[in-house]
Amino acid sequence: MTWKININTDVGDGYGQWRLGVDEEILSLVPTVNIACGFHAGDPRIMHRVTARAVELGVDVGAHVSLPDLRGFGRRPMEIDPGDLRDDVLYQVGSLDAFVRAEGGAMRHVKPHGALYTMCGKRVDYAQALLEAVAKYDDELIVITGPGWPQRLAADYGLTVVGEGYIDLDYRPDGYPEAEETRRPRDPEDVALRALRIVKEHTAKALDGSAIEVVTPTLCLHGDRSVIRHVRERLAEEDVDVVGLSSALAAA
Amino acid sequence: MTWKININTDVGDGYGQWRLGVDEEILSLVPTVNIACGFHAGDPRIMHRVTARAVELGVDVGAHVSLPDLRGFGRRPMEIDPGDLRDDVLYQVGSLDAFVRAEGGAMRHVKPHGALYTMCGKRVDYAQALLEAVAKYDDELIVITGPGWPQRLAADYGLTVVGEGYIDLDYRPDGYPEAEETRRPRDPEDVALRALRIVKEHTAKALDGSAIEVVTPTLCLHGDRSVIRHVRERLAEEDVDVVGLSSALAAA
Amino acid sequence: MTWKININTDVGDGYGQWRLGVDEEILSLVPTVNIACGFHAGDPRIMHRVTARAVELGVDVGAHVSLPDLRGFGRRPMEIDPGDLRDDVLYQVGSLDAFVRAEGGAMRHVKPHGALYTMCGKRVDYAQALLEAVAKYDDELIVITGPGWPQRLAADYGLTVVGEGYIDLDYRPDGYPEAEETRRPRDPEDVALRALRIVKEHTAKALDGSAIEVVTPTLCLHGDRSVIRHVRERLAEEDVDVVGLSSALAAA
Amino acid sequence: MTWKININTDVGDGYGQWRLGVDEEILSLVPTVNIACGFHAGDPRIMHRVTARAVELGVDVGAHVSLPDLRGFGRRPMEIDPGDLRDDVLYQVGSLDAFVRAEGGAMRHVKPHGALYTMCGKRVDYAQALLEAVAKYDDELIVITGPGWPQRLAADYGLTVVGEGYIDLDYRPDGYPEAEETRRPRDPEDVALRALRIVKEHTAKALDGSAIEVVTPTLCLHGDRSVIRHVRERLAEEDVDVVGLSSALAAA
Repeated sequence: MTWKININTDVGDGYGQWRLGVDEEILSLVPTVNIACGFHAGDPRIMHRVTARAVELGVDVGAHVSLPDLRGFGRRPMEIDPGDLRDDVLYQVGSLDAFVRAEGGAMRHVKPHGALYTMCGKRVDYAQALLEAVAKYDDELIVITGPGWPQRLAADYGLTVVGEGYIDLDYRPDGYPEAEETRRPRDPEDVALRALRIVKEHTAKALDGSAIEVVTPTLCLHGDRSVIRHVRERLAEEDVDVVGLSSALAAA
Repeated sequence: MTWKININTDVGDGYGQWRLGVDEEILSLVPTVNIACGFHAGDPRIMHRVTARAVELGVDVGAHVSLPDLRGFGRRPMEIDPGDLRDDVLYQVGSLDAFVRAEGGAMRHVKPHGALYTMCGKRVDYAQALLEAVAKYDDELIVITGPGWPQRLAADYGLTVVGEGYIDLDYRPDGYPEAEETRRPRDPEDVALRALRIVKEHTAKALDGSAIEVVTPTLCLHGDRSVIRHVRERLAEEDVDVVGLSSALAAA
Repeated sequence: MTWKININTDVGDGYGQWRLGVDEEILSLVPTVNIACGFHAGDPRIMHRVTARAVELGVDVGAHVSLPDLRGFGRRPMEIDPGDLRDDVLYQVGSLDAFVRAEGGAMRHVKPHGALYTMCGKRVDYAQALLEAVAKYDDELIVITGPGWPQRLAADYGLTVVGEGYIDLDYRPDGYPEAEETRRPRDPEDVALRALRIVKEHTAKALDGSAIEVVTPTLCLHGDRSVIRHVRERLAEEDVDVVGLSSALAAA
Repeated sequence: MTWKININTDVGDGYGQWRLGVDEEILSLVPTVNIACGFHAGDPRIMHRVTARAVELGVDVGAHVSLPDLRGFGRRPMEIDPGDLRDDVLYQVGSLDAFVRAEGGAMRHVKPHGALYTMCGKRVDYAQALLEAVAKYDDELIVITGPGWPQRLAADYGLTVVGEGYIDLDYRPDGYPEAEETRRPRDPEDVALRALRIVKEHTAKALDGSAIEVVTPTLCLHGDRSVIRHVRERLAEEDVDVVGLSSALAAA
């Protein structure tokens, strides 16, 4: 028996002279990337460069949409009018799609970032704003989110909304990960074992010891290259194929 | 004998709580509007609102792309890397197109704004950056610019690039208008006469008294509603039809 | 018997090409103004211009400090790290003071704006951040806030913190005003009567009909000039002198 | 015989999550630092942190003022109204001074950054804007600039304006350094020799081989720690004391 799973990773998290992470190497290690669209990180030049390379390598590209907060890297919750949020998402999705089209690719998904990720899970109006924006733009786009409202509302908007498995972050009992700010360096084998448990047993252990059911076509991994490499090796050894998000969805 | 001419006007020039002009009324007076994309003015909510109304009224929509300069309203020339400029244009075109698509319309044109308008006319590398961005995105888009490089290079990029007639600004001898900042309130009849001279005689008079040849499918008019109304009345009296940009191009 | 009261009004709420309100006329009508410092409105040129005119007219100047949110005019609550907030306040206070010093004046007070105004009242850590910033900069500065934490903590920071009376906004039962966004045009005489009631009877009526005690040296008035003029006339008729904030404090 | 020279280095060149350089170590290696004020880099939290540490270590602090261009790191020349420039400088100087005052220190100097540095040297109106801002704020502040207008105009504004020696950049024949973007890693001994030549012989060699006279109290060094350490060792061996800017000026 073999399994199929997707891995999605953030890239393009620089701005102007500044860089976070090593996008070029990440792009050769994962099938799916989330590209920042200028609201929490990413400027047009970086967006174009990363998108061009992703399209060249056949890596699937999605818009990593955020609250407008460059200074806080999109991690500061903000009370925003849902209509403003919808339009901020549309703006970002369109801006990234310009580069994808220019490079002859096709955008595959949208994923909220940082504080917006959590806000969309917890508040129905924010989830609606996110889904309305995506559905109005292109209802073939897959939406990757945390648990809660977006997944419950998917059918209302005719959208495919999928959760993801956190393997280099700790689970809180509510199914959300602990804030990235406190992310500790992880033992690569520990991350790989978390991945295998989610893929084969559909479960993860929360910080309070409780078991959480995780049925998902995609694993969220942050940009530590040695960890990604180790996870991929271990998945291969255990007969788990790392595939595109659509293939992982079809296999589920 | 009848003539056909297009009129294009800027709309959506607000930001957050701030407004310039009365977009709603402009949209009922002209066939073509240039919508700010967030770099010199315009935020996603305003962009969406103006685009939705334009599509509803059948007004043709284009991206009014700019240097990144909200504070200076895009009027401050900046030495920008041509690759950065190309990507800034792509970003803006895509962001506006998100709203046009969401509302079921189709973007028709791109027009550089402010300092970028003049810079593209004078420097070949900036003109190339502009045209490369538009051609990479969609070579059916018409580009409206001032005289100079963009029009000379149009064929290289497989694009339709058109000039425009200035009727509420004064012509400098180089064929560019005097800076908008110094725009004086204009006598409506004077503006109308300038329009008629361009449409029927293809000529305008520069500030130094010299005559300038102006062969164009479109007139640029700023947002003074009483002036627009008077110009439209006078054009109608003189057998000039105000039409969409494509129709005006086809008639030329 | 006579009374003394201060009136404080926001000015400098433009940005680049955009304006809100008519600062020049406001400056001739009130003894105390709050000047936006670039985070919710105000750019350095506007800040300088308004400050210069205020100093020239002998109007007392204070820093109207805000969350970093130009697009939302500082009205969108944001979860911000208290250390970041403290430093954002210091930054803004220093930036305005540069213009006050350059013009030979002296800054008199600090007032939080919009969402920050309410957040400081409700959360002890935000109130501490605000007061720490002001105390570190200059403990002679008076702080104008809503009810709650800042007033309770004033002594800990060696600061004078004063509340204010809302006369063109409605009181909620918690002593805070209804959001400005919903501010209705007000009958000038109604505003004047609210002012007189606060000055002479130290009371206001909340939206739910309950009476709220309001003991304050200053009234908050927004920029409707005809209202301000009428309020001043009526206060004069009723033997209430409109004075600087320090004088009003001394008289209390 | 001994010599005295100052060294000034840029610090605080991060923004939000992003960092350039290792400020903590730089602060223990040089007597004078230029702190970014939020226009090309630096946010209030970073500004406060770097300033606090500098004051603690007795390192002299100055405002590194810039054009408003976070994305381009202040390196993109912009045509800006001189009045706007003056007010942008005042705003930045005041904002940094807030942190210096809060930490009990005293700001010592102002230095323009990037494109502004060159623009002030070449255009009299920009030099005037810079000097007017500094003089209006505090005429005890020393201004560090490139050659040209600011030094010529110093007396008109009652200011001390000093040039600096470039030792890890190449000299152009006009006395300005080649753009930092093209800065190559430097041999530490080569940098040290350039420093010694400037300090003892007041001369440097330009890219075209010509000799340039350089009489200055301060050397500009960028943040390569091993280079700074080597330069300091070699200066010490050659009887050159590295001192504060005022001491170096007094010794000249």
